[in-house]
Amino acid sequence: MKFTKMHGTGNDYIYVNGFVEKIENPSELSRKLSDRHKGVGSDGLVMILPSEKCDFRMRMFNSDGSESEMCGNASRCVGKYVYEKGLTDKTEITLETLAGTKVLRLWLNERKKVEKVTVDMGVPVFDAPSIPATFEQWPVIRYPLPVGEDGIYEVTSLSMGNPHAVLFLEKIDELNLPVIGPIIEHSPFFPNRTNTEFVEVVPGGLKMRVWERGAGETMACGTGACAAVVAAVLNGVADRKTTVQLRGGSLEIEWNEESNRVYLTGDAVTVFEGETELEN
Amino acid sequence: MKFTKMHGTGNDYIYVNGFVEKIENPSELSRKLSDRHKGVGSDGLVMILPSEKCDFRMRMFNSDGSESEMCGNASRCVGKYVYEKGLTDKTEITLETLAGTKVLRLWLNERKKVEKVTVDMGVPVFDAPSIPATFEQWPVIRYPLPVGEDGIYEVTSLSMGNPHAVLFLEKIDELNLPVIGPIIEHSPFFPNRTNTEFVEVVPGGLKMRVWERGAGETMACGTGACAAVVAAVLNGVADRKTTVQLRGGSLEIEWNEESNRVYLTGDAVTVFEGETELEN
Repeated sequence: MKFTKMHGTGNDYIYVNGFVEKIENPSELSRKLSDRHKGVGSDGLVMILPSEKCDFRMRMFNSDGSESEMCGNASRCVGKYVYEKGLTDKTEITLETLAGTKVLRLWLNERKKVEKVTVDMGVPVFDAPSIPATFEQWPVIRYPLPVGEDGIYEVTSLSMGNPHAVLFLEKIDELNLPVIGPIIEHSPFFPNRTNTEFVEVVPGGLKMRVWERGAGETMACGTGACAAVVAAVLNGVADRKTTVQLRGGSLEIEWNEESNRVYLTGDAVTVFEGETELEN
Repeated sequence: MKFTKMHGTGNDYIYVNGFVEKIENPSELSRKLSDRHKGVGSDGLVMILPSEKCDFRMRMFNSDGSESEMCGNASRCVGKYVYEKGLTDKTEITLETLAGTKVLRLWLNERKKVEKVTVDMGVPVFDAPSIPATFEQWPVIRYPLPVGEDGIYEVTSLSMGNPHAVLFLEKIDELNLPVIGPIIEHSPFFPNRTNTEFVEVVPGGLKMRVWERGAGETMACGTGACAAVVAAVLNGVADRKTTVQLRGGSLEIEWNEESNRVYLTGDAVTVFEGETELEN
């Protein structure tokens, strides 16, 4: 089976052309190939497939074999893949995912390579029951959340399709996320738990670390970067168009005033082309 | 640059044909390609090169860019590589390494593929100053080593080119290696620190976990498996020819009575063929 290894902001998947390669059990193959010592090594497997209603359809499998709805970082790589492999000559692409239709815009360099991709991440949702969260008033801006025995963190909370708690702090590099992260993740204010963004205002934009529910600290989180910028605008500490520095790289976020939609722009990198017989 | 990703007992490296590919800075390339998210992902880079005194020469670079002397698991993969790529039709191969000449013996299956490789790992060394260790008598067999505040572990110690402390215990799966490992590693009895093998006698051979100095618990350690069998023979709990089960797979070890040499036999697996432009 031929495959392409790609990453977006350090989020790395194995991309397979489902028009050509037939995979009987993608869930099991994802587990096998994702092994970082005895397999190809990845965060999971992405299949690029024909769609009846969009230009393409993507299916994503995590390294544990479970199917996932969608990931902003992976969808950017799909955009680069379909254009550079000649599956389309469009630079605006609709993508069918388990989380609905996503619209991608490709940015080409002078050599006709896809350097960056913009993904329409939808509108932020502020009403607490939809986050879901148990705050009695909203939007939730700088709410003093009790953390641990005697700590208080001011959280700004919203949904970007998934729950987020955004904290503005100083010196985020010094924070002990494995201690603070789980406390906020499991706070009784968030019945479905929450992703938490630790954000520092820096010259030129925001710097952020993220604690993803169920995953711990990760290199990057697309919806988290969007939530951080929306929260920063609500708190008056950033512009609607802001660069967010994450551990895995930078993302440009725009919360568009007219449409109320959030657009995420970031890299998509081809690491190598591969061929394996491991699927047999 | 073309490369082949291979593993031996879960120890995975990127193998490059140095007869064809010219690499200016292998140390930097190893760091770059070894990155498990933004690179190919590996424990390091192995270059296969011409040799003036042996059939081939191997150079190994760790994922941090440092050059390493030699690794039994990697040398097996070199054997499979040179035979299956048609660089030789010999099944006994001499390999020039920074740790001297190594002799490999290839085991073919009926399809002429290399299934297993035997590596001559040399002779065990028992005198304490050569290990180096500060025990006053040797061989060091079941020496009661103080560990922590009130613990005592009986260690058998020898060198296989590097220092080893072997402990025979029950239920090794339940041991807390991140606690016990560093205490033995830094014991004042081992001035250059030590690798430590936690070995359980099981039906059919030995089961082992290994704490490598400077690396922590690893999937497999070739010299550690050899040390475990030598120590088991000295303690009368295993035959000279024994299977050792490690987290990454099994190795067959023979401490030959006539030659006093230790032979390690294990798998060598091609995971995928790749091509990347990352070196530019």
